[in-house]
Amino acid sequence: MAKDWSPDGFILDLDGTVYTGSRPIPGAAEAVAYLRAKGKRIVFLSNRGNISRRMCRERLEAIGIPCEAEDIILTSSVVSRYLAEHEPDARVWVLGEQGLRDELAAHGVRFAARPQEADRLVVTLHETLTYAELNDAFRAVRAGARIIATNADRTFPGEDGEAIDVGGLLAALTHTTGTEVDTVVGKPSPLMAEAALDRLGLPPERCMVIGDSLASDIAMGRRMGLRTALVLTGSATREAAMALDEAERPDWILDSLADIRRLLEEMER
Amino acid sequence: MAKDWSPDGFILDLDGTVYTGSRPIPGAAEAVAYLRAKGKRIVFLSNRGNISRRMCRERLEAIGIPCEAEDIILTSSVVSRYLAEHEPDARVWVLGEQGLRDELAAHGVRFAARPQEADRLVVTLHETLTYAELNDAFRAVRAGARIIATNADRTFPGEDGEAIDVGGLLAALTHTTGTEVDTVVGKPSPLMAEAALDRLGLPPERCMVIGDSLASDIAMGRRMGLRTALVLTGSATREAAMALDEAERPDWILDSLADIRRLLEEMER
Repeated sequence: MAKDWSPDGFILDLDGTVYTGSRPIPGAAEAVAYLRAKGKRIVFLSNRGNISRRMCRERLEAIGIPCEAEDIILTSSVVSRYLAEHEPDARVWVLGEQGLRDELAAHGVRFAARPQEADRLVVTLHETLTYAELNDAFRAVRAGARIIATNADRTFPGEDGEAIDVGGLLAALTHTTGTEVDTVVGKPSPLMAEAALDRLGLPPERCMVIGDSLASDIAMGRRMGLRTALVLTGSATREAAMALDEAERPDWILDSLADIRRLLEEMER
Repeated sequence: MAKDWSPDGFILDLDGTVYTGSRPIPGAAEAVAYLRAKGKRIVFLSNRGNISRRMCRERLEAIGIPCEAEDIILTSSVVSRYLAEHEPDARVWVLGEQGLRDELAAHGVRFAARPQEADRLVVTLHETLTYAELNDAFRAVRAGARIIATNADRTFPGEDGEAIDVGGLLAALTHTTGTEVDTVVGKPSPLMAEAALDRLGLPPERCMVIGDSLASDIAMGRRMGLRTALVLTGSATREAAMALDEAERPDWILDSLADIRRLLEEMER
Protein backbone atom coordinates (compact mmCIF):
# COMPACT_ATOMS: atom_id res chain seq x y z
CA MET A 1 0.00 0.00 0.00
CA ALA A 2 1.15 3.53 -0.69
CA LYS A 3 2.62 5.08 2.43
CA ASP A 4 0.94 8.40 1.68
CA TRP A 5 -2.59 7.05 1.69
CA SER A 6 -4.96 7.00 4.60
CA PRO A 7 -8.71 6.56 4.49
CA ASP A 8 -11.32 9.27 5.01
CA GLY A 9 -14.19 6.85 5.32
CA PHE A 10 -14.67 3.50 6.96
CA ILE A 11 -17.22 0.84 6.18
CA LEU A 12 -17.39 -1.38 9.24
CA ASP A 13 -18.95 -4.81 9.26
CA LEU A 14 -20.86 -5.63 12.46
CA ASP A 15 -21.14 -9.37 13.34
CA GLY A 16 -17.67 -10.69 14.02
CA THR A 17 -16.11 -7.24 13.66
CA VAL A 18 -17.84 -4.90 16.12
CA TYR A 19 -19.77 -7.46 18.15
CA THR A 20 -20.54 -11.15 18.37
CA GLY A 21 -24.21 -11.53 19.16
CA SER A 22 -24.72 -9.27 22.18
CA ARG A 23 -21.04 -9.32 23.20
CA PRO A 24 -18.82 -6.45 22.02
CA ILE A 25 -15.47 -7.26 20.43
CA PRO A 26 -12.96 -5.94 23.00
CA GLY A 27 -11.68 -2.49 21.99
CA ALA A 28 -14.25 -2.03 19.20
CA ALA A 29 -16.10 0.87 20.85
CA GLU A 30 -12.78 2.61 21.60
CA ALA A 31 -11.64 2.11 18.00
CA VAL A 32 -14.84 3.70 16.66
CA ALA A 33 -14.47 6.63 19.09
CA TYR A 34 -10.85 7.06 18.00
CA LEU A 35 -11.76 7.15 14.30
CA ARG A 36 -14.49 9.67 14.95
CA ALA A 37 -12.11 11.83 17.00
CA LYS A 38 -9.79 11.81 13.98
CA GLY A 39 -12.68 13.12 11.83
CA LYS A 40 -13.17 9.89 9.88
CA ARG A 41 -16.61 9.13 8.49
CA ILE A 42 -18.07 5.76 9.46
CA VAL A 43 -20.96 3.61 8.29
CA PHE A 44 -21.89 0.20 9.62
CA LEU A 45 -22.67 -2.34 6.94
CA SER A 46 -24.15 -5.71 7.80
CA ASN A 47 -25.57 -8.60 5.84
CA ARG A 48 -28.05 -9.07 8.66
CA GLY A 49 -31.55 -8.90 7.31
CA ASN A 50 -33.44 -10.13 10.34
CA ILE A 51 -33.23 -6.93 12.33
CA SER A 52 -34.35 -3.37 11.61
CA ARG A 53 -32.01 -0.40 11.77
CA ARG A 54 -33.72 0.72 14.97
CA MET A 55 -32.98 -2.65 16.63
CA CYS A 56 -29.40 -2.52 15.40
CA ARG A 57 -28.90 1.03 16.65
CA GLU A 58 -30.08 -0.02 20.12
CA ARG A 59 -27.63 -2.90 20.07
CA LEU A 60 -24.74 -0.60 19.14
CA GLU A 61 -25.66 1.95 21.77
CA ALA A 62 -25.78 -0.81 24.39
CA ILE A 63 -22.10 -1.53 23.74
CA GLY A 64 -21.03 2.11 23.79
CA ILE A 65 -21.28 3.01 20.10
CA PRO A 66 -23.86 5.76 19.61
CA CYS A 67 -24.94 6.39 16.01
CA GLU A 68 -27.74 7.56 13.74
CA ALA A 69 -30.02 4.94 12.19
CA GLU A 70 -28.88 6.31 8.81
CA ASP A 71 -25.30 5.28 9.61
CA ILE A 72 -26.45 1.66 9.68
CA ILE A 73 -26.92 -0.15 6.38
CA LEU A 74 -28.52 -3.54 6.70
CA THR A 75 -29.69 -5.89 4.00
CA SER A 76 -33.21 -5.60 5.45
CA SER A 77 -33.32 -1.92 4.47
CA VAL A 78 -31.46 -2.35 1.18
CA VAL A 79 -33.70 -5.21 0.02
CA SER A 80 -36.75 -3.16 0.97
CA ARG A 81 -35.52 -0.16 -1.01
CA TYR A 82 -34.62 -2.39 -3.94
CA LEU A 83 -38.09 -3.91 -4.11
CA ALA A 84 -39.86 -0.59 -3.60
CA GLU A 85 -37.84 0.98 -6.41
CA HIS A 86 -37.59 -1.85 -8.93
CA GLU A 87 -40.69 -3.96 -8.32
CA PRO A 88 -43.31 -1.71 -6.74
CA ASP A 89 -46.16 -4.01 -7.77
CA ALA A 90 -44.64 -7.23 -6.43
CA ARG A 91 -46.39 -9.06 -3.61
CA VAL A 92 -43.82 -10.62 -1.31
CA TRP A 93 -43.72 -13.60 1.00
CA VAL A 94 -41.17 -13.39 3.79
CA LEU A 95 -39.03 -16.16 5.21
CA GLY A 96 -37.54 -14.15 8.02
CA GLU A 97 -38.10 -12.29 11.20
CA GLN A 98 -40.09 -9.25 12.23
CA GLY A 99 -37.18 -6.87 11.66
CA LEU A 100 -37.34 -7.56 7.93
CA ARG A 101 -41.13 -7.25 7.83
CA ASP A 102 -40.86 -3.89 9.61
CA GLU A 103 -38.38 -2.56 7.03
CA LEU A 104 -40.43 -3.87 4.09
CA ALA A 105 -43.61 -2.31 5.48
CA ALA A 106 -41.80 0.97 6.13
CA HIS A 107 -40.82 1.06 2.43
CA GLY A 108 -44.40 0.36 1.32
CA VAL A 109 -43.72 -3.15 -0.02
CA ARG A 110 -46.90 -5.25 -0.41
CA PHE A 111 -47.27 -8.61 1.28
CA ALA A 112 -48.94 -11.66 -0.28
CA ALA A 113 -51.74 -13.20 1.77
CA ARG A 114 -50.68 -16.77 0.89
CA PRO A 115 -47.35 -18.23 -0.27
CA GLN A 116 -48.95 -19.29 -3.56
CA GLU A 117 -49.84 -15.67 -4.38
CA ALA A 118 -46.36 -14.25 -3.98
CA ASP A 119 -44.29 -12.81 -6.85
CA ARG A 120 -41.22 -12.65 -4.65
CA LEU A 121 -39.91 -14.69 -1.77
CA VAL A 122 -37.64 -12.59 0.45
CA VAL A 123 -35.28 -14.76 2.51
CA THR A 124 -33.22 -13.66 5.45
CA LEU A 125 -31.70 -15.13 8.58
CA HIS A 126 -34.34 -16.61 10.75
CA GLU A 127 -33.15 -17.85 14.11
CA THR A 128 -36.60 -19.03 15.13
CA LEU A 129 -37.27 -20.80 11.84
CA THR A 130 -39.71 -23.69 11.89
CA TYR A 131 -40.31 -26.42 9.34
CA ALA A 132 -43.76 -24.99 8.60
CA GLU A 133 -42.22 -21.64 7.67
CA LEU A 134 -39.57 -23.27 5.49
CA ASN A 135 -42.31 -25.20 3.78
CA ASP A 136 -44.39 -22.09 3.14
CA ALA A 137 -41.35 -20.57 1.45
CA PHE A 138 -40.90 -23.75 -0.61
CA ARG A 139 -44.53 -23.47 -1.72
CA ALA A 140 -44.15 -19.85 -2.70
CA VAL A 141 -41.23 -20.78 -4.96
CA ARG A 142 -42.99 -23.81 -6.43
CA ALA A 143 -45.91 -21.54 -7.28
CA GLY A 144 -43.58 -19.21 -9.14
CA ALA A 145 -42.18 -16.68 -6.66
CA ARG A 146 -38.63 -15.60 -7.54
CA ILE A 147 -36.14 -15.72 -4.69
CA ILE A 148 -34.47 -12.56 -3.42
CA ALA A 149 -32.14 -13.05 -0.47
CA THR A 150 -30.73 -10.50 1.92
CA ASN A 151 -27.45 -12.40 1.75
CA ALA A 152 -26.04 -15.77 0.86
CA ASP A 153 -23.48 -16.26 3.62
CA ARG A 154 -23.17 -19.87 4.68
CA THR A 155 -22.43 -19.17 8.32
CA PHE A 156 -22.17 -16.27 10.72
CA PRO A 157 -20.36 -15.93 14.04
CA GLY A 158 -23.08 -16.47 16.65
CA GLU A 159 -22.81 -16.00 20.39
CA ASP A 160 -22.06 -19.66 20.96
CA GLY A 161 -20.05 -20.38 17.84
CA GLU A 162 -20.52 -20.39 14.08
CA ALA A 163 -24.13 -20.83 13.06
CA ILE A 164 -26.09 -21.51 9.89
CA ASP A 165 -26.77 -18.35 7.91
CA VAL A 166 -29.11 -17.60 5.00
CA GLY A 167 -27.00 -19.73 2.63
CA GLY A 168 -28.24 -22.84 4.42
CA LEU A 169 -31.89 -21.88 4.04
CA LEU A 170 -31.34 -21.03 0.38
CA ALA A 171 -29.69 -24.40 -0.23
CA ALA A 172 -32.73 -26.17 1.24
CA LEU A 173 -35.06 -24.18 -1.01
CA THR A 174 -33.08 -24.36 -4.24
CA HIS A 175 -32.35 -28.08 -3.85
CA THR A 176 -35.99 -28.99 -3.25
CA THR A 177 -37.54 -26.66 -5.84
CA GLY A 178 -34.88 -26.81 -8.55
CA THR A 179 -35.11 -23.01 -8.71
CA GLU A 180 -32.04 -20.83 -8.42
CA VAL A 181 -31.78 -17.67 -6.33
CA ASP A 182 -32.65 -14.67 -8.45
CA THR A 183 -31.09 -11.77 -6.53
CA VAL A 184 -28.73 -11.52 -3.56
CA VAL A 185 -28.67 -8.08 -2.00
CA GLY A 186 -25.96 -8.50 0.60
CA LYS A 187 -22.20 -8.22 0.44
CA PRO A 188 -20.36 -8.81 -1.83
CA SER A 189 -23.15 -7.33 -3.98
CA PRO A 190 -22.47 -3.79 -5.24
CA LEU A 191 -25.90 -2.76 -3.93
CA MET A 192 -24.52 -2.74 -0.41
CA ALA A 193 -21.29 -0.91 -1.25
CA GLU A 194 -23.20 1.72 -3.20
CA ALA A 195 -25.54 2.32 -0.27
CA ALA A 196 -22.55 2.70 2.05
CA LEU A 197 -20.65 5.06 -0.26
CA ASP A 198 -23.81 7.14 -0.76
CA ARG A 199 -24.06 7.66 2.97
CA LEU A 200 -20.35 8.38 3.38
CA GLY A 201 -20.41 10.83 0.47
CA LEU A 202 -16.95 9.67 -0.54
CA PRO A 203 -15.48 7.93 -3.61
CA PRO A 204 -14.41 4.30 -3.12
CA GLU A 205 -10.71 5.09 -3.36
CA ARG A 206 -10.94 7.19 -0.18
CA CYS A 207 -12.52 4.40 1.85
CA MET A 208 -11.60 1.23 3.68
CA VAL A 209 -13.87 -1.68 4.45
CA ILE A 210 -13.12 -3.66 7.61
CA GLY A 211 -14.77 -7.01 8.16
CA ASP A 212 -14.33 -10.61 9.24
CA SER A 213 -15.54 -12.32 6.08
CA LEU A 214 -13.37 -12.96 3.05
CA ALA A 215 -16.34 -13.89 0.89
CA SER A 216 -18.49 -10.91 1.89
CA ASP A 217 -16.50 -7.96 3.18
CA ILE A 218 -13.18 -8.40 1.45
CA ALA A 219 -14.68 -9.60 -1.84
CA MET A 220 -17.02 -6.60 -1.93
CA GLY A 221 -14.21 -4.19 -1.17
CA ARG A 222 -12.00 -5.68 -3.87
CA ARG A 223 -14.78 -5.59 -6.41
CA MET A 224 -15.66 -1.97 -5.68
CA GLY A 225 -12.16 -0.51 -5.51
CA LEU A 226 -12.06 -0.04 -1.74
CA ARG A 227 -9.08 -0.79 0.46
CA THR A 228 -9.74 -3.82 2.62
CA ALA A 229 -8.80 -5.00 6.09
CA LEU A 230 -9.68 -8.41 7.46
CA VAL A 231 -10.19 -8.84 11.20
CA LEU A 232 -9.61 -12.24 12.80
CA THR A 233 -12.40 -11.96 15.37
CA GLY A 234 -15.00 -13.73 13.25
CA SER A 235 -15.27 -16.27 10.46
CA ALA A 236 -11.89 -16.15 8.72
CA THR A 237 -8.37 -17.13 9.63
CA ARG A 238 -5.06 -15.64 8.53
CA GLU A 239 -4.30 -18.92 6.75
CA ALA A 240 -7.52 -18.74 4.73
CA ALA A 241 -6.71 -15.17 3.72
CA MET A 242 -3.16 -16.01 2.68
CA ALA A 243 -4.38 -18.99 0.67
CA LEU A 244 -6.27 -16.67 -1.67
CA ASP A 245 -4.93 -15.31 -4.93
CA GLU A 246 -3.24 -11.96 -4.43
CA ALA A 247 -6.08 -10.14 -6.19
CA GLU A 248 -8.56 -11.48 -3.62
CA ARG A 249 -6.44 -11.09 -0.52
CA PRO A 250 -7.17 -8.27 1.98
CA ASP A 251 -4.74 -5.33 1.96
CA TRP A 252 -4.30 -5.71 5.71
CA ILE A 253 -4.98 -8.37 8.31
CA LEU A 254 -5.74 -7.13 11.82
CA ASP A 255 -6.13 -9.26 14.93
CA SER A 256 -9.17 -7.15 15.76
CA LEU A 257 -10.80 -3.80 15.08
CA ALA A 258 -8.86 -2.42 18.06
CA ASP A 259 -5.72 -2.58 15.88
CA ILE A 260 -7.07 0.03 13.46
CA ARG A 261 -5.55 2.74 15.65
CA ARG A 262 -2.04 1.33 15.28
CA LEU A 263 -2.54 0.85 11.53
CA LEU A 264 -3.75 4.42 11.07
CA GLU A 265 -0.86 5.80 13.12
CA GLU A 266 1.55 3.89 10.90
CA MET A 267 -0.12 5.26 7.79
CA GLU A 268 -0.07 8.81 9.00
CA ARG A 269 3.37 8.80 10.52
CA MET B 1 -43.47 -57.91 -19.93
CA ALA B 2 -43.85 -61.66 -20.29
CA LYS B 3 -47.51 -62.63 -20.32
CA ASP B 4 -46.79 -65.67 -18.20
CA TRP B 5 -45.35 -63.78 -15.26
CA SER B 6 -47.20 -62.60 -12.22
CA PRO B 7 -45.73 -61.56 -8.89
CA ASP B 8 -45.76 -63.56 -5.67
CA GLY B 9 -44.63 -60.68 -3.52
CA PHE B 10 -45.40 -56.97 -3.41
CA ILE B 11 -43.34 -54.19 -1.96
CA LEU B 12 -45.71 -51.28 -1.44
CA ASP B 13 -44.59 -47.74 -0.84
CA LEU B 14 -46.73 -45.81 1.67
CA ASP B 15 -46.78 -41.98 1.28
CA GLY B 16 -48.40 -41.17 -2.04
CA THR B 17 -49.21 -44.84 -2.74
CA VAL B 18 -51.30 -46.14 0.17
CA TYR B 19 -52.05 -42.87 1.92
CA THR B 20 -51.34 -39.16 1.78
CA GLY B 21 -50.75 -37.96 5.30
CA SER B 22 -53.73 -39.28 7.25
CA ARG B 23 -55.94 -39.64 4.14
CA PRO B 24 -56.10 -43.05 2.45
CA ILE B 25 -55.67 -43.25 -1.31
CA PRO B 26 -59.14 -44.31 -2.54
CA GLY B 27 -59.23 -48.07 -3.16
CA ALA B 28 -55.88 -48.75 -1.51
CA ALA B 29 -57.26 -50.78 1.40
CA GLU B 30 -59.41 -52.84 -1.00
CA ALA B 31 -56.39 -53.46 -3.24
CA VAL B 32 -54.33 -54.73 -0.32
CA ALA B 33 -57.21 -57.00 0.80
CA TYR B 34 -57.54 -58.32 -2.77
CA LEU B 35 -53.82 -59.14 -2.99
CA ARG B 36 -53.92 -60.92 0.35
CA ALA B 37 -56.99 -62.89 -0.70
CA LYS B 38 -54.99 -64.01 -3.75
CA GLY B 39 -52.26 -65.29 -1.40
CA LYS B 40 -49.74 -62.61 -2.34
CA ARG B 41 -47.14 -61.61 0.23
CA ILE B 42 -46.93 -57.90 1.03
CA VAL B 43 -44.48 -55.64 2.82
CA PHE B 44 -44.79 -51.90 3.22
CA LEU B 45 -41.60 -50.00 2.51
CA SER B 46 -41.29 -46.32 3.31
CA ASN B 47 -38.49 -43.79 3.32
CA ARG B 48 -40.15 -42.21 6.32
CA GLY B 49 -37.73 -42.09 9.18
CA ASN B 50 -39.64 -39.85 11.54
CA ILE B 51 -42.12 -42.45 12.73
CA SER B 52 -41.70 -45.81 14.43
CA ARG B 53 -43.19 -49.01 13.05
CA ARG B 54 -45.73 -49.00 15.86
CA MET B 55 -46.92 -45.52 14.84
CA CYS B 56 -47.05 -46.56 11.20
CA ARG B 57 -49.00 -49.71 11.99
CA GLU B 58 -51.59 -47.64 13.85
CA ARG B 59 -51.89 -45.36 10.86
CA LEU B 60 -52.42 -48.29 8.48
CA GLU B 61 -54.98 -49.89 10.76
CA ALA B 62 -56.87 -46.60 10.97
CA ILE B 63 -57.42 -46.72 7.19
CA GLY B 64 -58.46 -50.36 7.14
CA ILE B 65 -55.13 -52.09 6.48
CA PRO B 66 -54.28 -54.39 9.39
CA CYS B 67 -50.70 -55.70 9.47
CA GLU B 68 -47.84 -56.86 11.66
CA ALA B 69 -45.17 -54.36 12.66
CA GLU B 70 -42.68 -56.68 10.93
CA ASP B 71 -44.49 -56.13 7.62
CA ILE B 72 -43.52 -52.47 7.80
CA ILE B 73 -40.02 -51.48 6.81
CA LEU B 74 -39.14 -47.88 7.54
CA THR B 75 -35.84 -46.10 7.23
CA SER B 76 -36.01 -45.41 10.98
CA SER B 77 -35.72 -49.15 11.70
CA VAL B 78 -33.26 -49.86 8.87
CA VAL B 79 -30.91 -47.05 9.90
CA SER B 80 -31.08 -48.24 13.50
CA ARG B 81 -30.21 -51.80 12.52
CA TYR B 82 -27.43 -50.55 10.25
CA LEU B 83 -25.81 -48.51 13.03
CA ALA B 84 -26.23 -51.27 15.64
CA GLU B 85 -24.60 -53.82 13.31
CA HIS B 86 -21.88 -51.77 11.63
CA GLU B 87 -21.00 -49.06 14.15
CA PRO B 88 -21.94 -50.36 17.60
CA ASP B 89 -19.61 -47.91 19.36
CA ALA B 90 -20.80 -44.79 17.55
CA ARG B 91 -22.49 -42.05 19.57
CA VAL B 92 -25.21 -40.44 17.50
CA TRP B 93 -26.87 -37.04 17.38
CA VAL B 94 -30.36 -37.01 15.90
CA LEU B 95 -31.94 -34.39 13.66
CA GLY B 96 -35.38 -35.89 13.64
CA GLU B 97 -38.44 -36.76 15.56
CA GLN B 98 -39.23 -39.06 18.46
CA GLY B 99 -40.13 -41.99 16.20
CA LEU B 100 -36.52 -42.22 15.05
CA ARG B 101 -35.18 -41.87 18.58
CA ASP B 102 -37.48 -44.68 19.70
CA GLU B 103 -36.20 -47.03 16.98
CA LEU B 104 -32.56 -46.14 17.65
CA ALA B 105 -33.00 -46.74 21.39
CA ALA B 106 -34.80 -50.02 20.73
CA HIS B 107 -31.76 -51.17 18.73
CA GLY B 108 -29.34 -50.18 21.52
CA VAL B 109 -27.75 -47.26 19.64
CA ARG B 110 -25.94 -44.80 21.93
CA PHE B 111 -26.77 -41.11 21.96
CA ALA B 112 -24.22 -38.31 22.28
CA ALA B 113 -24.87 -35.84 25.09
CA ARG B 114 -23.82 -32.83 22.97
CA PRO B 115 -23.64 -32.31 19.19
CA GLN B 116 -19.89 -31.82 19.43
CA GLU B 117 -19.43 -35.31 20.89
CA ALA B 118 -21.26 -37.18 18.14
CA ASP B 119 -19.58 -39.63 15.74
CA ARG B 120 -22.69 -39.78 13.61
CA LEU B 121 -25.46 -37.35 12.74
CA VAL B 122 -28.65 -39.21 11.84
CA VAL B 123 -30.99 -37.05 9.75
CA THR B 124 -34.61 -37.73 9.01
CA LEU B 125 -37.76 -35.84 8.16
CA HIS B 126 -38.60 -33.42 10.90
CA GLU B 127 -41.88 -31.62 10.52
CA THR B 128 -41.43 -29.66 13.73
CA LEU B 129 -37.86 -28.67 12.89
CA THR B 130 -36.55 -25.47 14.46
CA TYR B 131 -33.52 -23.38 13.57
CA ALA B 132 -31.89 -24.33 16.89
CA GLU B 133 -32.15 -28.01 16.02
CA LEU B 134 -30.78 -27.46 12.51
CA ASN B 135 -27.91 -25.54 14.06
CA ASP B 136 -27.13 -28.32 16.54
CA ALA B 137 -26.91 -30.72 13.60
CA PHE B 138 -24.62 -28.26 11.79
CA ARG B 139 -22.38 -28.15 14.87
CA ALA B 140 -22.24 -31.93 15.11
CA VAL B 141 -20.99 -32.09 11.51
CA ARG B 142 -18.51 -29.25 11.96
CA ALA B 143 -17.10 -31.12 14.95
CA GLY B 144 -16.60 -34.21 12.82
CA ALA B 145 -19.81 -36.27 12.90
CA ARG B 146 -20.41 -38.12 9.63
CA ILE B 147 -23.88 -37.75 8.15
CA ILE B 148 -26.19 -40.73 7.76
CA ALA B 149 -29.63 -39.96 6.38
CA THR B 150 -32.77 -42.05 6.42
CA ASN B 151 -33.41 -40.85 2.89
CA ALA B 152 -32.49 -38.08 0.49
CA ASP B 153 -35.84 -37.40 -1.18
CA ARG B 154 -36.30 -33.75 -2.04
CA THR B 155 -40.03 -33.65 -1.45
CA PHE B 156 -42.84 -35.87 -0.24
CA PRO B 157 -46.58 -35.70 -0.84
CA GLY B 158 -47.96 -34.07 2.32
CA GLU B 159 -51.57 -33.65 3.30
CA ASP B 160 -51.72 -30.15 1.89
CA GLY B 161 -49.41 -30.60 -1.08
CA GLU B 162 -45.79 -31.43 -1.77
CA ALA B 163 -43.53 -30.62 1.14
CA ILE B 164 -39.81 -30.40 1.82
CA ASP B 165 -38.30 -33.78 2.64
CA VAL B 166 -34.94 -34.79 4.10
CA GLY B 167 -33.11 -33.72 0.92
CA GLY B 168 -33.79 -30.11 1.85
CA LEU B 169 -32.35 -30.48 5.33
CA LEU B 170 -29.31 -32.28 3.95
CA ALA B 171 -28.73 -29.51 1.40
CA ALA B 172 -28.73 -26.93 4.20
CA LEU B 173 -26.19 -28.97 6.17
CA THR B 174 -23.86 -29.94 3.34
CA HIS B 175 -23.84 -26.42 1.87
CA THR B 176 -22.97 -24.77 5.18
CA THR B 177 -20.46 -27.36 6.42
CA GLY B 178 -18.85 -28.34 3.12
CA THR B 179 -19.27 -31.98 4.22
CA GLU B 180 -20.98 -34.51 2.00
CA VAL B 181 -23.54 -37.06 3.16
CA ASP B 182 -21.81 -40.29 4.07
CA THR B 183 -24.64 -42.85 3.91
CA VAL B 184 -28.23 -42.77 2.69
CA VAL B 185 -30.29 -45.67 3.96
CA GLY B 186 -33.55 -45.10 2.13
CA LYS B 187 -34.76 -46.10 -1.32
CA PRO B 188 -33.19 -46.41 -3.84
CA SER B 189 -30.49 -47.86 -1.53
CA PRO B 190 -30.20 -51.66 -1.67
CA LEU B 191 -30.41 -51.72 2.15
CA MET B 192 -34.13 -51.11 1.91
CA ALA B 193 -34.78 -53.62 -0.86
CA GLU B 194 -32.79 -56.28 0.99
CA ALA B 195 -34.78 -55.71 4.16
CA ALA B 196 -38.02 -56.03 2.18
CA LEU B 197 -36.97 -59.20 0.33
CA ASP B 198 -35.77 -60.73 3.62
CA ARG B 199 -39.20 -60.25 5.08
CA LEU B 200 -40.98 -61.52 1.96
CA GLY B 201 -38.72 -64.55 1.76
CA LEU B 202 -38.76 -64.32 -2.04
CA PRO B 203 -36.15 -63.67 -4.72
CA PRO B 204 -36.34 -60.27 -6.45
CA GLU B 205 -37.53 -61.74 -9.76
CA ARG B 206 -40.74 -62.93 -8.09
CA CYS B 207 -41.58 -59.48 -6.72
CA MET B 208 -43.04 -56.17 -7.80
CA VAL B 209 -42.46 -52.80 -6.19
CA ILE B 210 -45.28 -50.27 -6.43
CA GLY B 211 -44.64 -46.64 -5.57
CA ASP B 212 -45.16 -43.02 -6.54
CA SER B 213 -41.54 -41.96 -6.78
CA LEU B 214 -39.37 -42.49 -9.86
CA ALA B 215 -36.20 -41.59 -7.98
CA SER B 216 -36.90 -43.82 -4.98
CA ASP B 217 -39.29 -46.67 -5.71
CA ILE B 218 -38.76 -47.26 -9.40
CA ALA B 219 -35.00 -46.66 -9.28
CA MET B 220 -34.63 -49.13 -6.40
CA GLY B 221 -36.72 -51.74 -8.18
CA ARG B 222 -34.74 -51.37 -11.40
CA ARG B 223 -31.45 -51.60 -9.55
CA MET B 224 -32.44 -54.72 -7.62
CA GLY B 225 -34.07 -56.69 -10.44
CA LEU B 226 -37.66 -56.22 -9.29
CA ARG B 227 -40.59 -55.49 -11.57
CA THR B 228 -41.82 -51.93 -11.07
CA ALA B 229 -45.14 -50.13 -11.20
CA LEU B 230 -45.51 -46.37 -10.83
CA VAL B 231 -48.72 -44.96 -9.34
CA LEU B 232 -49.79 -41.42 -10.23
CA THR B 233 -51.24 -40.57 -6.82
CA GLY B 234 -48.08 -38.95 -5.48
CA SER B 235 -44.97 -37.17 -6.69
CA ALA B 236 -44.56 -38.29 -10.29
CA THR B 237 -46.43 -37.76 -13.53
CA ARG B 238 -46.83 -40.03 -16.53
CA GLU B 239 -44.88 -37.50 -18.58
CA ALA B 240 -41.93 -37.59 -16.16
CA ALA B 241 -41.90 -41.39 -16.33
CA MET B 242 -42.02 -41.48 -20.13
CA ALA B 243 -39.21 -38.92 -20.34
CA LEU B 244 -36.81 -41.38 -18.71
CA ASP B 245 -34.51 -43.73 -20.59
CA GLU B 246 -36.14 -47.09 -21.15
CA ALA B 247 -33.86 -48.75 -18.59
CA GLU B 248 -35.13 -46.39 -15.90
CA ARG B 249 -38.80 -46.38 -16.83
CA PRO B 250 -41.34 -48.29 -14.73
CA ASP B 251 -42.68 -51.52 -16.25
CA TRP B 252 -46.23 -50.33 -15.64
CA ILE B 253 -47.91 -47.04 -14.88
CA LEU B 254 -51.12 -47.22 -12.83
CA ASP B 255 -53.48 -44.36 -12.07
CA SER B 256 -53.56 -45.62 -8.49
CA LEU B 257 -52.96 -48.70 -6.36
CA ALA B 258 -56.60 -49.62 -6.92
CA ASP B 259 -55.65 -50.55 -10.50
CA ILE B 260 -53.41 -53.41 -9.35
CA ARG B 261 -56.44 -55.69 -9.42
CA ARG B 262 -57.06 -55.06 -13.11
CA LEU B 263 -53.35 -55.47 -13.91
CA LEU B 264 -53.13 -58.75 -12.04
CA GLU B 265 -56.27 -60.07 -13.73
CA GLU B 266 -54.74 -59.24 -17.12
CA MET B 267 -51.52 -61.00 -16.16
CA GLU B 268 -53.28 -64.10 -14.95
CA ARG B 269 -55.90 -64.36 -17.67
